[in-house]
Amino acid sequence: MNSKQFSSTTAGQVIRCKAAMAWEVGKPLVIEEVEVAPPQAMEVRLKILFTSLCHTDVYFWEAKGQTPLFPRIFGHEVGGIVERVGEGVTDLKPGDHVLPVFIGECKECRHCKSEESNMCDLLRINTDRGVMLNDGKSRFSINRKPIYHFVGASTFSEYTVLHVGSVAKINPAAPLDKVCVLSCGILTGLGATLNVAKPKKGSTVAVFGLGAVGLAVAEGARIAGASRILGVDLNAKRFDEAKKFGVTEFVNPKDHDKPVHEVLAEMTNGGVDRSIECTGSINAMISAFECVHDGWGVAVLVGVPNKDDAFKTHPMNILNERTIKGTFFGNYKPRFDLPSVVEKYMNKELELEKFITHEVSFSEINEAFEYMLRGEGLRCIIRMDALSRI
Amino acid sequence: MNSKQFSSTTAGQVIRCKAAMAWEVGKPLVIEEVEVAPPQAMEVRLKILFTSLCHTDVYFWEAKGQTPLFPRIFGHEVGGIVERVGEGVTDLKPGDHVLPVFIGECKECRHCKSEESNMCDLLRINTDRGVMLNDGKSRFSINRKPIYHFVGASTFSEYTVLHVGSVAKINPAAPLDKVCVLSCGILTGLGATLNVAKPKKGSTVAVFGLGAVGLAVAEGARIAGASRILGVDLNAKRFDEAKKFGVTEFVNPKDHDKPVHEVLAEMTNGGVDRSIECTGSINAMISAFECVHDGWGVAVLVGVPNKDDAFKTHPMNILNERTIKGTFFGNYKPRFDLPSVVEKYMNKELELEKFITHEVSFSEINEAFEYMLRGEGLRCIIRMDALSRI
Ligand SMILES: NC(=O)c1ccc[n+]([C@@H]2O[C@H](COP(=O)([O-])OP(=O)(O)OC[C@H]3O[C@@H](n4cnc5c(N)ncnc54)[C@H](O)[C@@H]3O)[C@@H](O)[C@H]2O)c1
Ligand SMILES: NC(=O)c1ccc[n+]([C@@H]2O[C@H](COP(=O)([O-])OP(=O)(O)OC[C@H]3O[C@@H](n4cnc5c(N)ncnc54)[C@H](O)[C@@H]3O)[C@@H](O)[C@H]2O)c1
Ligand SMILES: [Zn+2]
Ligand SMILES: [Zn+2]
Ligand SMILES: [Zn+2]
Ligand SMILES: [Zn+2]
Repeated sequence: MNSKQFSSTTAGQVIRCKAAMAWEVGKPLVIEEVEVAPPQAMEVRLKILFTSLCHTDVYFWEAKGQTPLFPRIFGHEVGGIVERVGEGVTDLKPGDHVLPVFIGECKECRHCKSEESNMCDLLRINTDRGVMLNDGKSRFSINRKPIYHFVGASTFSEYTVLHVGSVAKINPAAPLDKVCVLSCGILTGLGATLNVAKPKKGSTVAVFGLGAVGLAVAEGARIAGASRILGVDLNAKRFDEAKKFGVTEFVNPKDHDKPVHEVLAEMTNGGVDRSIECTGSINAMISAFECVHDGWGVAVLVGVPNKDDAFKTHPMNILNERTIKGTFFGNYKPRFDLPSVVEKYMNKELELEKFITHEVSFSEINEAFEYMLRGEGLRCIIRMDALSRI
Repeated sequence: MNSKQFSSTTAGQVIRCKAAMAWEVGKPLVIEEVEVAPPQAMEVRLKILFTSLCHTDVYFWEAKGQTPLFPRIFGHEVGGIVERVGEGVTDLKPGDHVLPVFIGECKECRHCKSEESNMCDLLRINTDRGVMLNDGKSRFSINRKPIYHFVGASTFSEYTVLHVGSVAKINPAAPLDKVCVLSCGILTGLGATLNVAKPKKGSTVAVFGLGAVGLAVAEGARIAGASRILGVDLNAKRFDEAKKFGVTEFVNPKDHDKPVHEVLAEMTNGGVDRSIECTGSINAMISAFECVHDGWGVAVLVGVPNKDDAFKTHPMNILNERTIKGTFFGNYKPRFDLPSVVEKYMNKELELEKFITHEVSFSEINEAFEYMLRGEGLRCIIRMDALSRI
C-alpha cells in the first residue's frame, strides 16, 4: 500500500466507504455507506486497516451512566495510513503509517510543554464532543445527515478524519495488525505502571480488572521487577489468561465475605505497595485506593467512571500517607512517545501477540462487542480490509 | 539546668508535680498535683520547660467528632530535658535537651526503614490510646486513679513519661522556648511543602488555613521559590499576619458565592500547581483537592479530620491526572531529621520568632486555648517554669 495506490481510489474530495454505524444506545452496529469529507486545515484523512475494541467504546455505546450521543461512529484503538492531508499539515504525508490516539498533542499548550502532563488543552479526551475542532462540524454523513465522531478518532470506518495532533507517525515496517493495540489500551496499562505508579523492584502490585488494560499493567509491573502481582477480577475466566502475564495470585471479590481491600491487606502484611485500577467500577476504584499500604502506598485510577459516580473514602485513609493519582494514556505523550514504544515491539522487548485473542472481519464487528461484554479474551482485532472478502 | 540539679529534686521514684488536667470534654483545664511514675523499660521521664498549643490538642479536648477520652493530660508541642531514663535506654541520658514528637521512630520497623514513610508501626500517632505501650497503663495518677496520656506526649505537665522513640535529642545550645514549636506544627507545615507537595520554582501554591501550620507551609513555599502563594481562610484576621509569611493573595470563602475551588481556578488559569490543607475541615480538604490544576496538580492533606468525615469527589477529578496525598509531621523522620532542622534555626536559615505571637504562664494555660478558639495569633508558648512565679 502506498500513496500512489490511494490517489487512484480516492481521487474525489468526498470518499464514500463503509462504516459501522451506532444508530442507537446499545443496539448492534450496522455497516452502512457513509460519506467522509476531506480533511480541513490541520486535519488528516486516514485509511483504517486494523482497529480493535476497547472498553471505553463499549461504555459510550451502552451509555449506562454516560451521556448518549447518537448516531455515532465509535472506535479509537487503531492502525492506519494517511490518505490525504489538509492545509497546513507538514508533519504527515499520504502513505505514512500512523497510530491515531484519543488524547492528542498540540505541542504548544502548557500541558504539552509540561513534563508531567499529557492532557493537551486542545486535544485532550472529550467524550461529549462529537465534532471536529476546526468548524465544530462532523466529517461523516449519510444522505447529508451528520454522524457524530468519538474521542476525535471514530475508527470503525474505512476512512476517518482526525486532527493532525491526534496522529502518531510510526515505523512503516511495523505490522499494523499488531501495533494497533498500542494506540490505546496496552500503552495505557504499561504507562500507568511504568510512568505513574512506578513500583520499585521487589514490591507488591495489585491490579484491579484483568482485561487488556489491566494485563498491560501487570506486564509493566513484571518489567519493573515486582515480586508479587495480585490480580483482582469478578470474572474468574480472566485468571487463566492472566497467568501468562506474570500475575502471581488471584482474588475474586465474590469469593470473600469481607471487603476486597481487607483481603488484600491480609495477604500482604498491611497493604500492597502499588495498586492500579482498570475496571471503570467505582467500587473497584475505592478498593484499589484503600488496599494500598499506609506510609508509602500509591493507587492509580485508569478506568473510566460513570458520570454520576462519587469517589468516597475516610480522609484519614489519605492522611495516613497514601497517594492517589489518575492517568490517561498512561501519561505517555502520544506523538512523542508512541514511535519509540513501537520500536520496542520491533526489537522484541515488548510482546503484543499475547494481548490479541480474537480477530474478526469488519462485517463481524458486533462479535467483538459480544466478546467484551462476555469478558472473553483480551483484544479482538477488526480487519477492515477483510470486508470485501465476506 | 543539669543532671546534678535533677538528682536532688527528683530523687524519689514517683514525682509529684503540677499538671493541667482536662477532666471533661471542653471544660477549662485545672492545674492539679499529679503523680508521675518512673519511666519503665525504653521510656524516659522529662521535665517540660516550654510547651505550646496545637489545634490537635483542641480537637480532642473539644471532642466534637472525635472519640472522647477523659480525664486526660493534653499537650504535644514541647521542649524539655531528660530527668530519668528507664531500663535499656542508651540513646539518652539525664540532662539531654529534647523535643518530644507525637509520631515516634523505633528505627526497626518497615516504616522506619522505608525512605518514604515516617509512620512507625510501634510509635505512630494514636489518638485513641491513652496509655503507655510497655504495660498498657498510664504513668499519671491522682490519688492512684489513672489519668490518660495524649499521643504519647502529654506535655501539659511539669513532668511526663514518653517512649524513648518519641524523643529527639537536640543541640543543648538551642533555646527551648523557641525550638519547641518545631516539635509539631511548624515542622509539619514546612515538611508538608518541602517533602510532600514539592512545588517547583515559579509555581503557584494554595494554602488552606493560615494558622501556624498553614503559615509554615507558606514559609516552605517561599523557600521552594513559589511565585504566588494564595492563602485561604474563613477568618479575615489571619490575613494581616500572613503577609509576613510571604502569602501574596488572600481568599475568604465567605466573600464568594461560588465554591472556593472555582475562585482559585479562575485566579490561576485553571488551578494551582500545589495545594496544602491545614484546617481540619472536610470542606477545605475537598476544595484543596479540587482547586489543583489537572495534568500535574498535587494536593496534600495535613488537617486532622473528624472521625465521621467523608472525603468525596468525582473520580474524573482524579483521573484528570491530579494527585492527592496525606502527611503526618510533614514526612520528617522525627529523631533523624529534627536535630538538623534545629541547626537550621541556629544558623538563622529558619525563623521561628514570627510564629510565636503569645506567651502565658502555666497557670494561664486556658488563655492559650481561648486564643486558638478565637483564631488570634499563631503559637502561644506556655512557660512551665513560670508557675511558681505567679
Ligand atoms: N485512562 C485511560 O487512558 C484509559 C484508556 C483505555 C481504557 N480505559 C478504561 O480502562 C478500563 C479497562 O479497559 P479494558 O479495555 O481492559 O476493559 P475489559 O472489559 O477488557 O476489562 C475490565 C475488567 O474489569 C473487570 N471488573 C469490572 N468490575 C470489576 C470490579 N468491581 N472488581 C474487579 N474487577 C472488575 C471485568 O470483569 C473485566 O475483566 C475501562 O474502564 C476503560 O474504559 C482507560
Ligand atoms: N498532619 C499532621 O501531622 C498535623 C500536625 C499538626 C497539626 N495538624 C492539624 O493541622 C491543622 C492546623 O493546625 P493549626 O495548629 O495551624 O490550627 P489553627 O487553628 O491555628 O489554624 C487553622 C486555620 O484554619 C482556618 N479554617 C478552618 N476551617 C476552614 C475552612 N473550611 N476553610 C478555610 N480555612 C479554615 C481557621 O480559621 C484557622 O485560621 C489542624 O487540623 C491540626 O489538627 C496536623
Ligand atoms: Zn481505549
Ligand atoms: Zn497541547
Ligand atoms: Zn500538633
Ligand atoms: Zn518504627
